[in-house]
Amino acid sequence: MRIIEIKDGMNKRKTLNELLKREDEDNLEIENTVRDIINNIKRNGDVALKEYTYKFDRVELENIKVSKEEVEEAIDIVGEEFLNILKEASENIRIYHEEEVETTWFKDFGPGIKLGQKITPIKRVGLYVPGGTAGYPSTVLMTAIPAKVAGVKSLAMVTPPDSSGKVDPYILAAAYVANIDEIYKVGGAQAIAALAYGTETIEPVYKIVGPGNIFVATAKKQVFGKVDIDMIAGPSEIGILADEKSNPRIIAADLLSQAEHDEMAAPIFITTSKEQAEKVEEEVYKQIEKLPRKDINLKSIENYALGIIARNKDEAIEWMNEFAPEHLEILYDNPETYLDKITNAGAIFLGEYSPEPVGDYFAGPNHTLPTSGTAKFSSPLGVYDYFKRSSIIQYNKDALEKVGDKVQKFAKKEGLFAHANAIDIRFQED
Amino acid sequence: MRIIEIKDGMNKRKTLNELLKREDEDNLEIENTVRDIINNIKRNGDVALKEYTYKFDRVELENIKVSKEEVEEAIDIVGEEFLNILKEASENIRIYHEEEVETTWFKDFGPGIKLGQKITPIKRVGLYVPGGTAGYPSTVLMTAIPAKVAGVKSLAMVTPPDSSGKVDPYILAAAYVANIDEIYKVGGAQAIAALAYGTETIEPVYKIVGPGNIFVATAKKQVFGKVDIDMIAGPSEIGILADEKSNPRIIAADLLSQAEHDEMAAPIFITTSKEQAEKVEEEVYKQIEKLPRKDINLKSIENYALGIIARNKDEAIEWMNEFAPEHLEILYDNPETYLDKITNAGAIFLGEYSPEPVGDYFAGPNHTLPTSGTAKFSSPLGVYDYFKRSSIIQYNKDALEKVGDKVQKFAKKEGLFAHANAIDIRFQED
Repeated sequence: MRIIEIKDGMNKRKTLNELLKREDEDNLEIENTVRDIINNIKRNGDVALKEYTYKFDRVELENIKVSKEEVEEAIDIVGEEFLNILKEASENIRIYHEEEVETTWFKDFGPGIKLGQKITPIKRVGLYVPGGTAGYPSTVLMTAIPAKVAGVKSLAMVTPPDSSGKVDPYILAAAYVANIDEIYKVGGAQAIAALAYGTETIEPVYKIVGPGNIFVATAKKQVFGKVDIDMIAGPSEIGILADEKSNPRIIAADLLSQAEHDEMAAPIFITTSKEQAEKVEEEVYKQIEKLPRKDINLKSIENYALGIIARNKDEAIEWMNEFAPEHLEILYDNPETYLDKITNAGAIFLGEYSPEPVGDYFAGPNHTLPTSGTAKFSSPLGVYDYFKRSSIIQYNKDALEKVGDKVQKFAKKEGLFAHANAIDIRFQED
Repeated sequence: MRIIEIKDGMNKRKTLNELLKREDEDNLEIENTVRDIINNIKRNGDVALKEYTYKFDRVELENIKVSKEEVEEAIDIVGEEFLNILKEASENIRIYHEEEVETTWFKDFGPGIKLGQKITPIKRVGLYVPGGTAGYPSTVLMTAIPAKVAGVKSLAMVTPPDSSGKVDPYILAAAYVANIDEIYKVGGAQAIAALAYGTETIEPVYKIVGPGNIFVATAKKQVFGKVDIDMIAGPSEIGILADEKSNPRIIAADLLSQAEHDEMAAPIFITTSKEQAEKVEEEVYKQIEKLPRKDINLKSIENYALGIIARNKDEAIEWMNEFAPEHLEILYDNPETYLDKITNAGAIFLGEYSPEPVGDYFAGPNHTLPTSGTAKFSSPLGVYDYFKRSSIIQYNKDALEKVGDKVQKFAKKEGLFAHANAIDIRFQED
């Protein structure tokens, strides 16, 4: 774990990019592999989809669609207690996301002029859920429930099978709780291609959401434009704002809860106390010993973890805004009074009793958050990702007549005479 | 112009894709050219930027930044009358977009639990404005004003110079009216790269918006992830819903107002009257004779224009939703009663006196709209494109204690023991 002190003349962006190794590089090899996969799925549909599943997931599938029996079996395995936890989490997620619902409006903007905006759910959406150790039932809830709240009618989930051809029962149980009844056992770039272009079995969708590995992320970027995508997820991160009163054990535990996600996860804290920074480091190495994912934790801590010592809170917050963490914890007293100064963060956790995991699973806000500094321009996944807007414009004859001349002048300055003609013709005799 | 009749068993998607030649193909040559340009700008900054400007725009520039004097000169050329039209349009655009403003909220969700969502403008945004005949002052207003309404503090506009090193005065005048004081005379993929990665002269931005040619669109797609982008604009289109009472001269004029944009523009109408469809075709060829952009119009009409005869209004609307036009005109009586049935359209123009040009320049809603069928998943450019959201989560000790056990069980099922530890540690003695 590296600890640095902020000094005069340090460039925030440069320093952080270097320390966090945040330089984006093209990976043409992966891009070409993914392009070939997408083209093959476009041409050969289900046949190619099954070939890739055999190649990458090591299983030959007769049916890629998950059956009702498979879901029922999963529910049995998962058991009632956990099913109830899933249901309670779902309810919290639903209640929070209801706040994000927007409604169509249409109203007067002057004599003879009505303007508005229509809100319409996207008709059909695809959800990607990773397999293996990165496959989380919480991801199913977090991607599906806002879609349901938005009114999306048709949801297709894809997730890679294991080598016995099965999907993790916890993922299936979460899909059951979230009311997803169309699930396919396919993963990787080939699943993204199938959702974007359709195959004999899978109807194409208009938007694809959900996290995935580099192949999935690259495929999402390549099909973007043909369909919409939510965001391109990178390694996860946490930023903790602490002062001399914050508890180093808590800071250490929270850094580690991020570190265990991924060897490339970036857990950082910015504090105004050098003494405390040293205690945090000590605590991190003490707690790490007891963790089953110690290896992943160690790699993340060694390569990406950072303690930054700021000279005051304003400086600390400025550096944190430049880091733009996926998860931000503010461990100051009266943390809500600092909200105005926070400009870049996916989710903001206030105070000592709001650890990140309560947001990951239970509180209600989405855990699909902008990573790798993209909180500078991106938002958490939300209901707004599942609807789209249409402007509404209605002028009557008098209103159009009044502005017609100006519209025509504008059009002609742009060289668009047929635009001007479309106004003229409405006021000419047949 | 082609006229088809809908028959039983026709597949809407397939039929429209074939007629509109809407098959997306990779263009690896352009992708590679653009990748090289981006990498060169990343490595060589301003030097490369000036080299490309010399190569593509045929002008050697000393300063790429537009000076105050250049803006003042442009204002003189444009003159007061047009400046006033720009100001009036701006005011309408501002008033409409004020409706899209969202505000931060933070409230109780149960004992000891507060949740919320913070709205923060994106700090710095780049606006691309095409040059030549596709360079419209209205584009400047439509991209800049929602950014200002959202509270974006720093806006950088890029637009290619002509071979004398000047920018169209109407574009500069629009920038002046929209309060943009940072303008660079660079265009193409190199301008997008400069905005995304920064050069000595241009500070990098977090989001790039605005239309452009295939090189600009490809560059936007390649830098997406490093920065956000608005959308990938394709050829423009209009869809008109007409019945036997609609005026064929108006339908023809409105088809042509779309056709003049671009040889690949798709102007289509769906009517319930075969007789009328024939009259529309006649009118199109009559009106086209008088238009200065006759050649562009003819190519669009011959290759992409479509008259579709539906057996009833419901069928007409279903086909229109599959077309998902950028601009939709509803020429039925009481057009507002059909709004509920419209699911895919960028902007909806209601009734005979709401022609598309009134929306292009003046009414207020944005004219930057989803093209090429992307209205199935995209929205008009809006204030929401210029802010981002952060979730806010605050639990007190009691509230966390109450749910701690469930959060831990969830975390452990996902194999995330450090997540569980982050809860534990808060309730252990030091």
